[in-house]
Order: sequence, then C-alpha cells, then structure tokens
Amino acid sequence: MKKIGIVGATGYTGVELLRILATHPHVDISFVTSRSNVGMRVDAMFPNLRGFIDLCFSDPNSDELTDCDLVFFATPNGIAMKQTSALLEAGTKVIDLAADFRIKDIDIWSKWYGMTHACPELVEEAVYGLAELNRERIKNARLVANPGCYPTAVTLALLPLIQSKAIQLDDIIADTKSGISGAGRQANVGTLLSEAGESFKAYAVDGHRHQPEIAQTLSLAAGETVDLNFTPHLLPIIRGIHATLYVKERTGNEADLNLQTLYEDFYVNEPFVDILPKGSHPETRSVKSSNMCRISPHRPTTGSRIVVLSVIDNLVKGAAGQAVQNMNLMLGFDETTALMQPALLP
Amino acid sequence: MKKIGIVGATGYTGVELLRILATHPHVDISFVTSRSNVGMRVDAMFPNLRGFIDLCFSDPNSDELTDCDLVFFATPNGIAMKQTSALLEAGTKVIDLAADFRIKDIDIWSKWYGMTHACPELVEEAVYGLAELNRERIKNARLVANPGCYPTAVTLALLPLIQSKAIQLDDIIADTKSGISGAGRQANVGTLLSEAGESFKAYAVDGHRHQPEIAQTLSLAAGETVDLNFTPHLLPIIRGIHATLYVKERTGNEADLNLQTLYEDFYVNEPFVDILPKGSHPETRSVKSSNMCRISPHRPTTGSRIVVLSVIDNLVKGAAGQAVQNMNLMLGFDETTALMQPALLP
Amino acid sequence: MKKIGIVGATGYTGVELLRILATHPHVDISFVTSRSNVGMRVDAMFPNLRGFIDLCFSDPNSDELTDCDLVFFATPNGIAMKQTSALLEAGTKVIDLAADFRIKDIDIWSKWYGMTHACPELVEEAVYGLAELNRERIKNARLVANPGCYPTAVTLALLPLIQSKAIQLDDIIADTKSGISGAGRQANVGTLLSEAGESFKAYAVDGHRHQPEIAQTLSLAAGETVDLNFTPHLLPIIRGIHATLYVKERTGNEADLNLQTLYEDFYVNEPFVDILPKGSHPETRSVKSSNMCRISPHRPTTGSRIVVLSVIDNLVKGAAGQAVQNMNLMLGFDETTALMQPALLP
Amino acid sequence: MKKIGIVGATGYTGVELLRILATHPHVDISFVTSRSNVGMRVDAMFPNLRGFIDLCFSDPNSDELTDCDLVFFATPNGIAMKQTSALLEAGTKVIDLAADFRIKDIDIWSKWYGMTHACPELVEEAVYGLAELNRERIKNARLVANPGCYPTAVTLALLPLIQSKAIQLDDIIADTKSGISGAGRQANVGTLLSEAGESFKAYAVDGHRHQPEIAQTLSLAAGETVDLNFTPHLLPIIRGIHATLYVKERTGNEADLNLQTLYEDFYVNEPFVDILPKGSHPETRSVKSSNMCRISPHRPTTGSRIVVLSVIDNLVKGAAGQAVQNMNLMLGFDETTALMQPALLP
Repeated sequence: MKKIGIVGATGYTGVELLRILATHPHVDISFVTSRSNVGMRVDAMFPNLRGFIDLCFSDPNSDELTDCDLVFFATPNGIAMKQTSALLEAGTKVIDLAADFRIKDIDIWSKWYGMTHACPELVEEAVYGLAELNRERIKNARLVANPGCYPTAVTLALLPLIQSKAIQLDDIIADTKSGISGAGRQANVGTLLSEAGESFKAYAVDGHRHQPEIAQTLSLAAGETVDLNFTPHLLPIIRGIHATLYVKERTGNEADLNLQTLYEDFYVNEPFVDILPKGSHPETRSVKSSNMCRISPHRPTTGSRIVVLSVIDNLVKGAAGQAVQNMNLMLGFDETTALMQPALLP
Repeated sequence: MKKIGIVGATGYTGVELLRILATHPHVDISFVTSRSNVGMRVDAMFPNLRGFIDLCFSDPNSDELTDCDLVFFATPNGIAMKQTSALLEAGTKVIDLAADFRIKDIDIWSKWYGMTHACPELVEEAVYGLAELNRERIKNARLVANPGCYPTAVTLALLPLIQSKAIQLDDIIADTKSGISGAGRQANVGTLLSEAGESFKAYAVDGHRHQPEIAQTLSLAAGETVDLNFTPHLLPIIRGIHATLYVKERTGNEADLNLQTLYEDFYVNEPFVDILPKGSHPETRSVKSSNMCRISPHRPTTGSRIVVLSVIDNLVKGAAGQAVQNMNLMLGFDETTALMQPALLP
Repeated sequence: MKKIGIVGATGYTGVELLRILATHPHVDISFVTSRSNVGMRVDAMFPNLRGFIDLCFSDPNSDELTDCDLVFFATPNGIAMKQTSALLEAGTKVIDLAADFRIKDIDIWSKWYGMTHACPELVEEAVYGLAELNRERIKNARLVANPGCYPTAVTLALLPLIQSKAIQLDDIIADTKSGISGAGRQANVGTLLSEAGESFKAYAVDGHRHQPEIAQTLSLAAGETVDLNFTPHLLPIIRGIHATLYVKERTGNEADLNLQTLYEDFYVNEPFVDILPKGSHPETRSVKSSNMCRISPHRPTTGSRIVVLSVIDNLVKGAAGQAVQNMNLMLGFDETTALMQPALLP
Repeated sequence: MKKIGIVGATGYTGVELLRILATHPHVDISFVTSRSNVGMRVDAMFPNLRGFIDLCFSDPNSDELTDCDLVFFATPNGIAMKQTSALLEAGTKVIDLAADFRIKDIDIWSKWYGMTHACPELVEEAVYGLAELNRERIKNARLVANPGCYPTAVTLALLPLIQSKAIQLDDIIADTKSGISGAGRQANVGTLLSEAGESFKAYAVDGHRHQPEIAQTLSLAAGETVDLNFTPHLLPIIRGIHATLYVKERTGNEADLNLQTLYEDFYVNEPFVDILPKGSHPETRSVKSSNMCRISPHRPTTGSRIVVLSVIDNLVKGAAGQAVQNMNLMLGFDETTALMQPALLP
C-alpha cells in the first residue's frame, strides 16, 4: 500500500479525490490537510465519506507529508509551488491540481496568475498530466501538473484534428460551458444558488487563464503556433463541462477527411476517451461522476465549420479523476484503477 | 377595447400571452381555444391566472374568431397557414407565433418544416415581426410572422455589425443556448426534469430550422448572402436564451471600429434593446419575464474574433412579449404597453 | 407622489421592493441606501432595474431619510430598531421587513435574536403587518412590523381553523419548506449552488426564530395559548414557500366541519388569499413573483389529521409584496396598487 | 458467476440496476428486456453504460429468462405478478421492484392498485425485502418484494421507536419529499423540467399507495395497529427522498428516552443505516448514488413532538440498491457487494 497525502482537502477537488481514493485498493490516505480546520473530522465536513475516511484534517506544514509516497495539492494557485521542492527532495512525488506548473513560459504564467513564481526551475521538469498526450513521460515523472478542466475538454476534442494537420490553426473557436463546482467551495455571492441558479452567462470573455494553457498544449502538438478564441460560460448545474469547438479545414482538405474515422482511430486505445456514434450529441450527465470524456465530431449542413462536441465531469476527468489516473501511472498501478465506474444517470 | 383571440393557448407561448395581456389596458381577451380542452377553465390549467382570466377554452374552429380584431396563433407549425386566410378576409389581423410565415422561400420552408405550404400567397405579404428592423411595415401589416426565439437573440446581436458592413459575412458563428421551455409543453421523455436537469448538451448540430430564418434576415439586412454556423444547446433552466456570436472584421477595418459606440448608437431609440456598459456579461436572469434584449459586444485579448453576447427571455422577447409588441404596433397602441416591467431577479 | 426610502437595498427583499415599486403610480423612490456600496448605481448591481431605477446607493445615516414619507428597512435584524425612533419623530412612517418589531415579549425576542432591544417602547406600538388580520390598525400605524415569510404562509393557512375554534391548539405541526432566497444575498458556503442545489434538508429543527412569531399570532387570534412544532426545510429553488400543516379537530367536531366552505368564506373578500378548488395541491410556482397566497385544506382518507397546504412567494407575500401592501394601506392608496400581476408560470 | 435477468430495464430503476451490477464481481447480466425496444443496444439508450453493458434489449416473454439464477422486475405494477410463477417453478429467484407482492391483504392491494391480483398465492410467500427487518427470511426467499422508496425511508426512521414501544401508534405523521425520478421515465407533462423545475408541491394528499405499505410494516413490527398521516411532496431534484416524521411519546415515557442512544444501538450493526451525530440535519445529497440511509432523531425545544429526519437515494436504497442488497443475501454473497461507494458530493 502506498501512502498518500492531500493538501487542501476542503475544496471540491479535495473531497472528490477522497471519494475516488476511498475505494482504491493500493493506496492509504494517510494525511489530509486544511489550514483552517485542523482537528476536525473529515467526514464531519463531508458526510458522504462517513464510514470511508476515518481521518481528521492536519496542519499542511507538518513534516509528515514527506512520509507520503505521493502528495496531491488540491489548493488554490500559488501554494504548491512553495512546498513542492522540499517534497521532491524527500522522495515524495507530487501532483498539483492547481495551475502552478502548467504554463512553461514563466512570464505568461505570472501575467495571468498575478504572482511571481516561487520555483521556476521545477516548471520545466513538471510533466503536463494529460495521459492521452504524455503517458510515458507521466510514468517517469516526479512532478505532474494536472491539466485545467476546460483545457482537458478542449484539448482532447481538438488533438485528432491538430495532429492530422487538417485544420487552420489561427482561427479556432472554443465556446465552453462549465458547471458551477468549477468555481470552487468558497463563500461568494456570485455562485449562490439564488444568483447562479436558473440563469446562464458568459464570463471572462476578454481573457481567461485557460486560454494560454490550451494554446500551449495545442501549439506543442501542432509544432506551430495555435491561436484560439476561448469563451467560458457558467452553467447552473453542479458538475459537467461541455466544449463546442469550431474549426476550419485547410483548403483542399475537405473532400478527404472522414471525421468519424479520424476520431475513432485516434482514440482507439484510450480507456477514458469515448467517441460516440456518428451524429451524436454528448450530454454532460453521461459522464457525471466518471473519468470519461465523450466526443462527437460534426460537419453541419450549413456554415463553413467543423463542429466538435466534448463533455467531461469537471471534477473527475477535469480534476480529481485525471489526477488519480496520473497517480496510477506514476506509482505503477493499472491506469484505470478505481476509475472504472459507469457515470451516474439520471 | 379591442377584441383578441388566442388559438392554441395551452402551450407556453399561449399562457405567456395571457399573462401579459391580462394587464393590458386596451384589449379584451375574448376567445381562447384549445382543441383538446374545450370547456375547461383556463385557470384550471394555469392557476397563476386565477382572478385574471375568466374564460374557458373554446373550439378553435368556431366562427367567433372572426369577431376578433386580432388573433394570435400560439399553435404548432402548420396550423396558422390553414386558418389565416379566412381571418384576414373577415378583417381580423393575425400574428403567428409559429413558423408558417417566417421564411420567404417556400421551397426552403418546405424542406425544413416537412410540409407543403397551405397559403404561399400570404407568405410574401407577411411582415417579419422584428420591430427593430421592420417597425413601420408592422404598423400597417394585416399578417405578422413573429420571429423565432433564437433568431431574435442572434439577429439583434448582429444587426449593428451587419448593417455597418464591418464584418465578413461568410463565416459567422452563432453558439446559442436555450432554456427548456423553448421545447414546449408536450409530454416528452427528453425534456423531463430527470433527463434534462443537471445536464447540458447541444442538439441539431447538423442543421436546425432557425438557421435559414437567421440567414434570411441577415442577408436582407446586408444586401448580400450571409452564411453562418448555428449550434443550439439545451440549458437546464426554464426561461432564457443566451447567444454567443463570433464574427471576423473585414480586413483593414480593425483599427477604426468602436464596438461599444456602434452598438449604443444603433439601438439608442429602441425601448427593448439594452446595450450594457462596456465589458459586461449579460445574464439570462436579467431579462427573465421581461421583453428586453441585453447585448454586450467584446473584442477579446486573444483570438481573432469579435464576440457579441445577447440574452432574451425566450417566452417574452422570443415569443409572446414580442408578439404583444407587434400587436401594439398593429393596433395603434404605444409600442411598450403592458411590456414595461423590470425582469424578475432573483 | 409620496417619497419613499429603502434602507439596505442590496439584499433580495431590497431589490424586490425596487422591482415592485418601480411601477407603482403614486410613489417616488427617492433614497436607496447601502453602507458598503455608497455611490454605486443601483442598476449596476441589479441589471434587471436598468431603465427603471435611476439612483445610486446613499449612506444609510443621511439626514435625508427623514424627508421621506415612508421608509422601508430591508436590513438585517437589529438595524431598524436603532433608526426608527428618529424617523417617527420626524413624521416619517416606517415598515421594518426584519424582525425587530415582530415579537411583543421583549425577553422572548432577546432570547431568539441574541440582542438587547434598542427601543422596547416602540415594540408595543408596532402593528404586525398581516393585513388579513390587522387591516384597520395598519391603516393608522406609524410603524409596521412586516411578518416573516414562514409565519405569513403558516398563519394564513391556520387562521380559519383557529378562529372557528375547530382544532386542538396544543399539537399543531407546521412542516415548512423555503426557497433559498430566504437565506439572503450574503456570501456563504451553505447556500452555494454547488452545496444547496440538487439536495434537500431540514434545518434548525431544534428551534427556529419563526416559531415564537407564529405562536404569538395564533395565540392572540385564538385567545388562548397555541403551541406548535415548526420544522423548516431548505428547497433547491430560488423563490417559494410551501407550508404543510397538520392539525387535529376538537373531539365532537368532526362531523360538522366543511373545510372547503370554512376557508372560502373566511377569505372571501381578501384580494391576496386564494382558496383553491377542493382537492387541489397548490404549487409554489403558481405564486412566483406574485403577492398571492394559495391555500387548500384536505381531510385525508388515512390518518387522523386535517392537512392544510399553503404557498407564497417568500420574497413577495413573504416580504416585499406584503410590505408594499402595508405601505398602500398606511399611505391611503388602494391596497392592491402595483401588486396585481399574474404569477410567472412557467 | 450467477446469471441475472432484468425485465423492463428502460426505466430509472432498470438503468440503476445496470449501473450497480456492472461492477458486481459475482454476476453476469445475461438478459435485459424491453417490450418496445427489442434489438436496440442498451448503451444507445443509456450512454453512461458504454463500455460496461454490451447487450441489446430482448423480448420480455422469451424462455431464456428461466435460464437466469435471478430475475429483477423493474416494471410497472401488475407485470411481475403475471410472470413470477413460471420463473419460480423453473428455479429462478425473483425480486420485484414494483408493488405486486408488497401488500399482504389482497383486498387492500386491489383497492389501491386498481387491479385484480394474478397470483395471490405467491403474495403470502413473498418476503418484504427490508434487510434491516427481514434479513434471515430474505436469505432463504425465492421471491422478494422490494420495498417502496417512501416506505424505506419512513420505516427505517420509525422502527427504533416502534419496537421500543416508546410512542403513540395512532397519530404518526410522515411528511415526505421525493426527487422527481421517483415518477419514472414516462413522457408526462407534469414532470417536465418546465413544469416541475423551480417549484414544489404536495400530491396525493388525500391518499397514496405507500401509506398502507408503511402501515402494514409498522403494524407488524409493533404487534398492534399503526395509523399514520402520509403526505408526499415533489422535489425539483432528480434523486433523493427526505422523510420528516412527527411522533408523540407515550405518557410517562418522556424523561427516560435517550433518542440518540436508542437509534445508535438499534442500528449498530447495519451496514446501510447511518445514525448521524446528535443535532444533525441529513441532506439528501449525502446519500446520492449510495445505498445508505442517514437518520437523525430530534426533540425540539418547542412543540410536543419527537422529530426524526431520514434521507435515502430513492433509486438506490429506495429501489435498485436495496434490490441488489437483497440479491446478495438471496444468492449467498456478502450483503454489501457492489454497494460500498461513497455518495457523490457535491
């Protein structure tokens, strides 16, 4: 049994890690921290865990963290970068679910996250934890940057077209919609049920932190610069991301491209990417509580664009589930351990 | 007092017409029909109308309809086209909230609606009831085709850019999201709370009836052919449409275009179009129960597109409210009568 | 035109007062205060009011409040009691939507609200603003204590049985359910959409402040002590209260009591209480946005209890609408002014 | 591996059985029927099952059902009673998730379900599948009547008080609230999101089928007749039942009864009943997707009643999960197999 620590387990990605790991056969959760809830039982905050997690929250600065084989940071941005170095030196592997190690260009990172980076030297080492792209590197990584929720849904939906050189790279549109758990478990007027319920809106249309993350991954995959419009919207549901991608085929390419075959072939061996039958419209509920990403590419009868639809559960494949997938790879377990459950429907 | 009839008042546009007209000072609702509920009190079906509407449902084929000054058809597609001719001959004006008279090209209409048109000669006469575009013609119309819900939100959002010749017309993207009341009040598995609640999906991505309606209006406004990708999505809320539009400026134009000023000037005199302060993100709830359309144009810092956000209440400005606005124009009342209420928030 | 002030207009009862008063023909809203938002436009916080309320938030301690004919306190508990005295002396009438003047017994009030009362001498003068019980006294009042939301729904449902001496008074059960806007517009983890959505729970089962308020009103109406179990629950909807009352007939009484007739007769002249047809189940949505209370009494075929069902919109008849009803009475307007709109359905 | 059949798998209890059994290590789902969808892939209807259930719907009248070791009926009432006899004769065990075998008194059953019973002789044999009450009998049963959803939540909440003879048995009140999936997956206007969303109501207040089922179980447990008021309400959520029970202690008993200890002791060995810490308010979301029932008894400071709060997931402990629990007992597996997962929160 491997020893696992979770720093910052009072947010939604934290409780979701606990839910998934509670039934993992090869790990023990030995350490769950929360600065402001030291001593409180974890299941007093999250009663769904009664009978599964028999722990109290500990202080995040305890030395005991270095006894763990692997530590997850389910913290706000800017925390992991301060503690990771000491953990790695002690031989503890790290998966950061926040954004501290996602962006390779430190200047871009600082601009979007409004901080000076505390350990730029580790940014280069960190592996971007999208197994569908970096599986072998993740297996050997000490430090994994778990992808953002939107970037996961968008990137998986675009990779087949990007890598096949089939589309124009300077005019991609990602219209994305996220359930409100993506905004976290902080007290906040804007995410009250009375404010966000029975309503819908876009936000951060002029610029959002996930845009440079997506652009970086797609540019690396394409071998040239990718630019995209990225527009997030807030859905009045708890879990789920839906990405609607609009791309334009390169001239001369249209006749030849069989979208359905391209996607099915590209992801044929992936356990957590499911290409739906041709003509499908994936629903976010089809992946609720599951680590699956379901995708369907379309070529509409009007307009000039290919449209790709992609759904994930933002807390699972978009956060905690993908983190456990990465942990499985890093610790030598079967990649799907504790992650093969049908989604909850209805 | 003018006498008003409503054919097919058991659906959501019907009850919404009744809600709005209940407080209209210049009309009497004298006739409300429903084929399958003849004799039933209207307020037994819709208890919100108790004390306001003292009527029973009548047979839709009654001669009494011709006693009305104006009749609304809040029926499924294909009904109004069969009864309108007789009403117009009797001097009764008609507003069709369905799609029978929206598309000028009968072949396109037949293709999308799967029927032969019963009175193509009236299609040409019918005025498309978007007051912001056709106010004077509506005032003199006998027959008004009330616009679709999506087309209202999309068209109002694009008109300033279309008419200013500022954008490319062959690559417009309309990513639209609608509350579920747009699917009507029919028994249906797909729109059950258990099916559509806590979920989100696109539908009809390969082609939707509102695409040709939008293309027609924009092409007429532009004086040349407009093509667009139109992707509708289903929101797990009751009321509200949000349209996110992506357009590309014509080359050479970028430096000069002040989006905010363009929009504010374009709609300066419109009572039901509200351009929000620069940088805003309109919420659907800000127009819930109201006839207002709120719009905010953006030029994001990444990507190559102008993004325009637009919200309406699909049952009000997208259906019954706009129909009453048209009725006010056709019957010589102040255009805003019975329509000036703040939206319900929260 | 009468001059109206609203203290603490950034909460849900505040914006609801603004929504309703925006179309009131006999009042001008001249003063809207918010300690923490002085200078901000009201419609920047509440965009539904754009075009209706052309004011900025003022400081609540301004002398200008005394220029008003009537001031609403839409503040947390404990604020109105500090400012009311000065206003009354200046001839300004006051309606408190909080609980400062609801409980006549100062000791009980202090126990439940955890404060020392700042002006106990005004508590006796204050009239409990349930027009159906105290209409004439409200007309002549300088100070009205607007009833709580739960007490409004529960009291209106029980008054006919209480005043007819038909039921046992020591074993009444009020199982009540409220939409989450009743919890206010404060940043709070428990009322986030992610926490309260798709869930349901009871709260404050061991004791809730509205219990003594209900007991006081019913005891006064009965002329003897009434005791009840009061259990509130949190509904994952924005607006609406549903009260389910369980009462036991006095022995010997059963054969004679025609529930339906009793209720219809009792409320025959009330504009805002609607007794539904026998056998009905009122829905909260049938009163959404409206000042109506809809009630249906039942005598089930099993069990020993009479069951009464009652619904209101907690922000309207349960708060701002009832406050405007009281204002209309206090300022000599028709009681229903600005309050006669059908509920929003769906 | 045991062979399992599911008759009527297109409803919510059917898909939930499939979701749970998909990861059960000791059973193979060999047969899934649906009269109206013969030949359709199961995962085409329920995409959450893609990769887990590789079956098409079969005809429910096929002889192959008798090859199964156990068959679940997830059908409407009145179906199982026609097919059970033949299955039992062939040695196939049966669990009926509908109501055909729940009520021992055939006349009462016929009155509430409006049918003549097709096999009254099996009703007596059938074991009521509440493991907490009938564990040993279930182990040896050929035929189990799976309890109704409301009866499960209510009965588990009352059993400790009933069996301890602590309360009056003729004046129990069960105020219950259910998520809308309890209404099934049939096309129906009343359960549309537009109708049932953002609203709340009671239904069947004058009499509901689950009242006699609860009364029967409690009367058997008490050894004398129990009468109760049972009032169901419809929650605008998908999953979850909350029962609020009001009971009165027998005279002379009050001083002695330690509610918390009574409940904790009563259920100390039960894997699927969780007594929360004293003073708790169970939330339905704390059991979403889980087979747990969480209970908290209260003695409020006002009123004369003990109040017990109880929550389950209506589709799991209230239907499919409890059915699998029963299957585990009937087939000799560990009772908790495939059922030990933390609830999904948020």
